[in-house]
Amino acid sequence: MPVETQEERPEIMERLYRVGITDLRTVAKINWKGKVYTFLPVFEVTIDVPAEKKGIHMSRLVESITEAMSEAVEEEVGGAHGSLEELGRCVIRRLEGKHPHRRAEVWIKTHLIIPRETPASGRTTYEPYDVEVGVIKHDDNSFEKVLRVRVIGNTVCPHAMANNNGKTHIQRARGELEVRTAFDEEISLEEMIDVVESSFSHPTYTLLKTVDENAVVQGMYRNPKFVEDVAREIFSKARERFKGKIHVRVISEESIHKHNVIAETWS
Amino acid sequence: MPVETQEERPEIMERLYRVGITDLRTVAKINWKGKVYTFLPVFEVTIDVPAEKKGIHMSRLVESITEAMSEAVEEEVGGAHGSLEELGRCVIRRLEGKHPHRRAEVWIKTHLIIPRETPASGRTTYEPYDVEVGVIKHDDNSFEKVLRVRVIGNTVCPHAMANNNGKTHIQRARGELEVRTAFDEEISLEEMIDVVESSFSHPTYTLLKTVDENAVVQGMYRNPKFVEDVAREIFSKARERFKGKIHVRVISEESIHKHNVIAETWS
Amino acid sequence: MPVETQEERPEIMERLYRVGITDLRTVAKINWKGKVYTFLPVFEVTIDVPAEKKGIHMSRLVESITEAMSEAVEEEVGGAHGSLEELGRCVIRRLEGKHPHRRAEVWIKTHLIIPRETPASGRTTYEPYDVEVGVIKHDDNSFEKVLRVRVIGNTVCPHAMANNNGKTHIQRARGELEVRTAFDEEISLEEMIDVVESSFSHPTYTLLKTVDENAVVQGMYRNPKFVEDVAREIFSKARERFKGKIHVRVISEESIHKHNVIAETWS
Amino acid sequence: MPVETQEERPEIMERLYRVGITDLRTVAKINWKGKVYTFLPVFEVTIDVPAEKKGIHMSRLVESITEAMSEAVEEEVGGAHGSLEELGRCVIRRLEGKHPHRRAEVWIKTHLIIPRETPASGRTTYEPYDVEVGVIKHDDNSFEKVLRVRVIGNTVCPHAMANNNGKTHIQRARGELEVRTAFDEEISLEEMIDVVESSFSHPTYTLLKTVDENAVVQGMYRNPKFVEDVAREIFSKARERFKGKIHVRVISEESIHKHNVIAETWS
Repeated sequence: MPVETQEERPEIMERLYRVGITDLRTVAKINWKGKVYTFLPVFEVTIDVPAEKKGIHMSRLVESITEAMSEAVEEEVGGAHGSLEELGRCVIRRLEGKHPHRRAEVWIKTHLIIPRETPASGRTTYEPYDVEVGVIKHDDNSFEKVLRVRVIGNTVCPHAMANNNGKTHIQRARGELEVRTAFDEEISLEEMIDVVESSFSHPTYTLLKTVDENAVVQGMYRNPKFVEDVAREIFSKARERFKGKIHVRVISEESIHKHNVIAETWS
Repeated sequence: MPVETQEERPEIMERLYRVGITDLRTVAKINWKGKVYTFLPVFEVTIDVPAEKKGIHMSRLVESITEAMSEAVEEEVGGAHGSLEELGRCVIRRLEGKHPHRRAEVWIKTHLIIPRETPASGRTTYEPYDVEVGVIKHDDNSFEKVLRVRVIGNTVCPHAMANNNGKTHIQRARGELEVRTAFDEEISLEEMIDVVESSFSHPTYTLLKTVDENAVVQGMYRNPKFVEDVAREIFSKARERFKGKIHVRVISEESIHKHNVIAETWS
Repeated sequence: MPVETQEERPEIMERLYRVGITDLRTVAKINWKGKVYTFLPVFEVTIDVPAEKKGIHMSRLVESITEAMSEAVEEEVGGAHGSLEELGRCVIRRLEGKHPHRRAEVWIKTHLIIPRETPASGRTTYEPYDVEVGVIKHDDNSFEKVLRVRVIGNTVCPHAMANNNGKTHIQRARGELEVRTAFDEEISLEEMIDVVESSFSHPTYTLLKTVDENAVVQGMYRNPKFVEDVAREIFSKARERFKGKIHVRVISEESIHKHNVIAETWS
Repeated sequence: MPVETQEERPEIMERLYRVGITDLRTVAKINWKGKVYTFLPVFEVTIDVPAEKKGIHMSRLVESITEAMSEAVEEEVGGAHGSLEELGRCVIRRLEGKHPHRRAEVWIKTHLIIPRETPASGRTTYEPYDVEVGVIKHDDNSFEKVLRVRVIGNTVCPHAMANNNGKTHIQRARGELEVRTAFDEEISLEEMIDVVESSFSHPTYTLLKTVDENAVVQGMYRNPKFVEDVAREIFSKARERFKGKIHVRVISEESIHKHNVIAETWS
């Protein structure tokens, strides 16, 4: 029989809130409105360790991921989880039968590729977004979720524009929106992405023919914005649409400086 | 006269808590126990924006850094700030005369290189550590500081050792300790580094002659530790020595897996 | 009619070898041995610019990717490209009808997730690998390809083992193998991954039950290796199996140091 | 007596060209035109291993760095190495007395902070640059050096400007210049930085008061440039001023796209 060192009493008796595996890359399938999409996400799965146990059985966390995955894959479209947070909760549910714990977290980080239409020529363009979903089971057995999106856009400086007869500096910016809410709150990552993307001076596109490029350029100059303006617009729209604790962070990669500027706020 | 767009009333009236510059690399000098050390830190400096102002004057934040720096440089040893947090507070003090605000933060991230002695041959070895210091001025004018260190060490698995007659898997690990406390609390980054470095299975060294390597190897096998054990030891020592809110995170870069394991807790 | 600035004569007349788009993340499907796999790769596509043209039409490079992709997607299993290099060549073929050039390159970087069996319990485990494929069309119209894999494994120090009665230091290591060869040379990324993974002290696994962990630990101690040994074994196996120019780089993330060690060689 | 496993005959007899330590962060001092500057660089030091030796003695490479450093530090201004490449060669010279080899390389990566004057208000601003210096001793005992600089600037699209009555998209860009040349060729990193920085639509500054910002904005619109134009200008200036093999790479972080564009060429 193998020794189970994890079950021993530790020298320092202290509850640890988050113990587990991190930076584990694997494959996952999500049934999104009736169509199955494949992702290559990075997982973090943690549970708490009570003061009187030396450690956790790490392999059971990996098994929970693998089983939640393969169940979905086997049953194909019908069985695939309906969202990343459903997948996360399913991993925790499987973990409940495998490893005692009072608290558990699953974090899933991946890219979404969403088809869009270019602004003038109406072509299809595929836009990439970074998303992260956390599912947290608390000591009282309640489930919370954390949804994060990170979207690339741009800022057009209204101060330089006012002082230079319409000339200004423009740059890429990135907006991050986090909503922390009850698990059952219906919030889609796509709507969160829309909130951020529509708050820049203009959305960006992977494919832009000359007529589209002109539309984007003209649109940017009609809509000059400080990084502060972008943060406020994201915050205001998010608070209106999403129930929960909201955190907004916008970074503008200034074209006239070597450093970035930042605007951040939260509810 | 230039237009001051920043002073205008914004469309969306919402206070922003953190607006400023980030990822700004520069040079800084610190007088550490009577000797002047040079750093190449990365700065973040933010202030709040009230609901009724469109934006902040970013260049004044840069000026505050530059002036705090050059004052110290000009006066050389005598004038250099005594610590990274002193430098941070000095940046905020200069900002007070330049830009109205109720809340301000300065974050300074850099590397420390500390001389050590190798365990058997007694040679000098220079060990690198990542540190970050945040100074926060709250609405009520009180100052808080956040001190962070990140130290590289190792873990030696006690479970594998118990099941394989003393053979086990060993790997590099990194430990992170954060203390959030009143500005005047005396806590040195060096002592925080010691707390983390002494909690691994064994400290690591840049220079190791064969006798030193043997000492480290023998020491590691005498002190097998889960990532949980390392986290608990850091947490317990830190709570004993440092007054404030403590956060510990240890990541073990498993030699038998492609992913990492993590243990995290806080007070 | 829009102005075509790109067609103008530049002030400095100099041929540029590589002009295009980079860091473009999108979705791709590959038909690998009769089954369709989805990837979220990052693309770089470049062509040369002759001395007398000011620039290239960037959007045509994006169109080539999108069309190569959607063609494959529409025709599903039958139409999906049989490999990442087939996809790369298909992008270049589409580019030929869109944009004059003498030289073209497509680089595709992604993750592969490959099912394996654990060493003792025989369970299925999914292992992640980083791969990159480059397809280069030269001035003479010949096609070359560059295949790269990056695999995580470990090293067990034979020097420390010999000096400490079997005790030693062990750590995670990563091995990189590049083969540069004619486009039609049949080399699979999976075989390249096997070459690297089998050259460490022991392969690593995402899922390891206690019996598996014991097997890995015992196996590591039976097979101590310097980073030099790993590099030589990869190099020797690769040269035997793959026709082309070979480059090997192994990095060992030392558990007794804060820095890494490296061994690199090439044919 | 310790066993010297490194001196044994390896199973696979194959010369390795580059074996050593990498990612080692430490402190260094350089006497630059009579004033001593401190850096916190990252080192890579490698030597070759002949086919008949199993490995190298890694600690001797660390000693070479430490000794080259402390010699310079002890003798202060007079003794500090006159440049990063002098320091690199000094590390190799020390290595010659410690470890037999036919080939050696030292790579030093750090940041330079250079004082500049703002374009209108004439204030002092400190600008950060990434630099890397490689010193290579070949089998025939000749020394070669590789100098690399990475500079942040911007591009202003001339195509969009021509099609939108002077409106256009602007973005941050980064330019990389590498010169590979004989060790004794006199080339300063500062001059290389100037070549790159002067080739963008406009240089960037850490500190910009409103009058300076206006000057930069006006200057950008007077000098629209494709990423291709920037690459050609860097290449042409570099070839005129520096003897050696030149490589240029410019990345423009497009404000209208989520991906980047690239222009690259070499001599």
